Amino acid sequence: MTETAAIIGGGVIGGGWAARFLLNGWNVNLFDPDPHVEAKLAPVLKQARHALPSLLDVALPEEGQLTFCAELKDAVAGAAWIQESAPERLEAKQRLLAQIEAACAPDAIIGSSTSGFRPSQLREGAQHTDRILVAHPFNPVYLIPLVELVAPDANDGVIATAKSVLTGLGMFPLHLRKEIDAHVADRFLEAVWREALWLVKDGIATTEEIDDAIRMGFGMRWAQMGLFDTYRTAGGEAGMRHFMAQFGPALKWPWTRLMDVPDFDDDLVDLIAGQSDQQSGHLTISEMLKARDENLVAMMRALKYRDWGAGAVLNEQERSIRSGTVLAARAGDLRDVSQPILTVRRAVPLDWTDYNGHMNEAKYLQAFGDATDRMMEMVGCDADYIATGGSYFTAETHIRHVDEVCAGTIIEVRTQMLMGQGKKMHLWHEMLAGKRLLATGEHFLLHVSLETRRPSEPAAHIVEALERISAAHANLPRPDGAGRYVGQRP
Amino acid sequence: MTETAAIIGGGVIGGGWAARFLLNGWNVNLFDPDPHVEAKLAPVLKQARHALPSLLDVALPEEGQLTFCAELKDAVAGAAWIQESAPERLEAKQRLLAQIEAACAPDAIIGSSTSGFRPSQLREGAQHTDRILVAHPFNPVYLIPLVELVAPDANDGVIATAKSVLTGLGMFPLHLRKEIDAHVADRFLEAVWREALWLVKDGIATTEEIDDAIRMGFGMRWAQMGLFDTYRTAGGEAGMRHFMAQFGPALKWPWTRLMDVPDFDDDLVDLIAGQSDQQSGHLTISEMLKARDENLVAMMRALKYRDWGAGAVLNEQERSIRSGTVLAARAGDLRDVSQPILTVRRAVPLDWTDYNGHMNEAKYLQAFGDATDRMMEMVGCDADYIATGGSYFTAETHIRHVDEVCAGTIIEVRTQMLMGQGKKMHLWHEMLAGKRLLATGEHFLLHVSLETRRPSEPAAHIVEALERISAAHANLPRPDGAGRYVGQRP
Repeated sequence: MTETAAIIGGGVIGGGWAARFLLNGWNVNLFDPDPHVEAKLAPVLKQARHALPSLLDVALPEEGQLTFCAELKDAVAGAAWIQESAPERLEAKQRLLAQIEAACAPDAIIGSSTSGFRPSQLREGAQHTDRILVAHPFNPVYLIPLVELVAPDANDGVIATAKSVLTGLGMFPLHLRKEIDAHVADRFLEAVWREALWLVKDGIATTEEIDDAIRMGFGMRWAQMGLFDTYRTAGGEAGMRHFMAQFGPALKWPWTRLMDVPDFDDDLVDLIAGQSDQQSGHLTISEMLKARDENLVAMMRALKYRDWGAGAVLNEQERSIRSGTVLAARAGDLRDVSQPILTVRRAVPLDWTDYNGHMNEAKYLQAFGDATDRMMEMVGCDADYIATGGSYFTAETHIRHVDEVCAGTIIEVRTQMLMGQGKKMHLWHEMLAGKRLLATGEHFLLHVSLETRRPSEPAAHIVEALERISAAHANLPRPDGAGRYVGQRP
Repeated sequence: MTETAAIIGGGVIGGGWAARFLLNGWNVNLFDPDPHVEAKLAPVLKQARHALPSLLDVALPEEGQLTFCAELKDAVAGAAWIQESAPERLEAKQRLLAQIEAACAPDAIIGSSTSGFRPSQLREGAQHTDRILVAHPFNPVYLIPLVELVAPDANDGVIATAKSVLTGLGMFPLHLRKEIDAHVADRFLEAVWREALWLVKDGIATTEEIDDAIRMGFGMRWAQMGLFDTYRTAGGEAGMRHFMAQFGPALKWPWTRLMDVPDFDDDLVDLIAGQSDQQSGHLTISEMLKARDENLVAMMRALKYRDWGAGAVLNEQERSIRSGTVLAARAGDLRDVSQPILTVRRAVPLDWTDYNGHMNEAKYLQAFGDATDRMMEMVGCDADYIATGGSYFTAETHIRHVDEVCAGTIIEVRTQMLMGQGKKMHLWHEMLAGKRLLATGEHFLLHVSLETRRPSEPAAHIVEALERISAAHANLPRPDGAGRYVGQRP
């Protein structure tokens, strides 16, 4: 059953939450007193629809229904998750939470996006204190996985439910055991922000130089290992203890202006805003947002290939979306294999397109290769089997490009087994966008021993599955394009 | 002519410098009083050889010659760049610099890897103060592009030479105009480190939770935009000024423990080292270094595709390596086109391999697609031409996989034009590793109008170049494998 989230406040953060829930198949009720809320939300949704489906190598669930509610009580009624993203004023948040409590289901979870306030502050005067949590996300909420979950005294069931909802949205809930002003991540942001203000104010570096010092250097280290693991590796085989012995003394050196904060006056604002204009004024904010999102997608997909950090979170979500569908089934579990089999269903990601503005030719083979992998898995040549020393190598491939396709389009591959016998597997893939044929792929594979790297007989369960599918597919007409050579006239 | 760098100190940082110079074609003289310097350097060089060639889509120059020198004066004689990476003790560094000055060429540049000392401190008592610079790199030096270049009072010629050397190594020299303790980047690292120590000491978060708070969140934002551009986008269309108005007040809130540093006692070291063991003790340091490097390569390649940040630095280096070689020439510039043309020369990058431990099938088409792009460019269908609305689309592809290839191997593609006439281009690519044939690719392309997306006549200069090459290639024997279909017996 489709679940409903209530999003209270539709700014950059609330809008990001709305997009993440919607694109992961939740219905969303949105309440924001701003009469321009629809116009405010539109660009955020557009950005999310551009970027988020690119993250995974499987299609997301169908998008949920978005409803703008004129009254807060209508928004929260029936919602399983309520997320408050109002401006950062404590009394206003407390008032909103009281209204939410009065109208929501008794078992709804109420998350607050607050950057700074502690749960105990939010809960003052509340009734169901154990259901009010800090769920602090990071901009852009529809892409960045981190959510700081601060919920002292909430019972284990509430925590487990909250984590399960956030994980289902492809997020990474970090459950903090103690509450503290600004939680954890923003404390680092604040420390760096203060130091950066000093450096600009004292004329040591411009905003652009500071950004370069971060993104050309430690920013990339932190994107994958964070602080401590980075230093652990810097300590060499002696690890963390060695690193600390070496760098401990620096704490006493005058390396930061930590004892003071700069005067936050108009001069400082002018200086920084002026340098920032100089640095990036040639781009509109929406161009920058697009660049930011496409960079994040590209890096997260790189980490997904590495099954690491934010990329491992994506793989987890992908496994969960596949499980229970035909995209995870074994041949033996499929009652009917008389038709070509669905082997790929995914969006064309942003990084699959090229200078011609469409999916690059190599990515057609990528998708067909994924379809082949899926067929291998289906007949029993999965990771466990490959670990025993058997696999398939592709010997030959013939692709015919029939039509173009752009990023974001959902594509499917359906696979017919032309022959599956002994070491040989001969496959016919058709790639479609809806009913539009995009390409055909004819592939000849050989089962090999990974030790000798030579052709070898597959295990009995594979031979059996191959025979079952190829016997069923023998009744299908032979595809027109099979057995053709390059340049052959139709 | 091959240039020589002298590396003084062969630890993690000095070794990283040595690797970066060597793999970019410099000869390296290494001096380190440690009798085990060769053993100390070996793993760093191995890591660099594993990772660095993966960054670019063109082969690096041939590796330079490494010489271990028993005397400092032998190491620095004849070196154009001397890099000091001794331990962080001022007097020791000053003594080394004096020895270097006494033995080096008068126009050599002397860089120091110091994290904390200012150039004026290093230069006390030196003679050629304008040639002694801080060139502060970031670990791993062979992958991370940032070098903080601090050189007050150096003349413009010295700065320009230093920048040019570092850029040639694929690095990003950030020239700081004023000197300050710890330069710029390490001041941020120090601020975050202090706050992190407090959070662990006060039991708010473990080392693992802190790392997750960074890498699942703002770490990825900083890897591509840094601090100020990230906040500029967070301010919406109103930009930086709006952001500052919103978050300025937070400076006065108790969001960091900035007023104090924690006691750096044994208890704190035990606490942190213990948590770090818990977090990552299941991995050896060398496993972590490999993971770190492969993550960095994957992310930097993602940013390279985006031509952004650290990835834009790689594209710049790649253009410089190609320029002046056959890999940048136009057909009209080539005197002899009678043989198949070199269209690709590159290492197989780490992210091109799959679960079978070899280059993935789709990447064969990627390399053949790059070879096709290069042939298009050579006949005059380059980015400028494509911007006028004409391009080539691949209609059909036939790949025969002849042999496997692993990451790091240098591959070449040589291209024969089977036909080039009007709208049609029929290409035959052969992929080789040395003399070993890896695969053949037969490709049929059509010139199209990017407006109508239908076949169209190419411009006259393209027709002319096609005719010249296809006439020359008509004298070559027709390849055995051309015109074959999938599964056809040899």
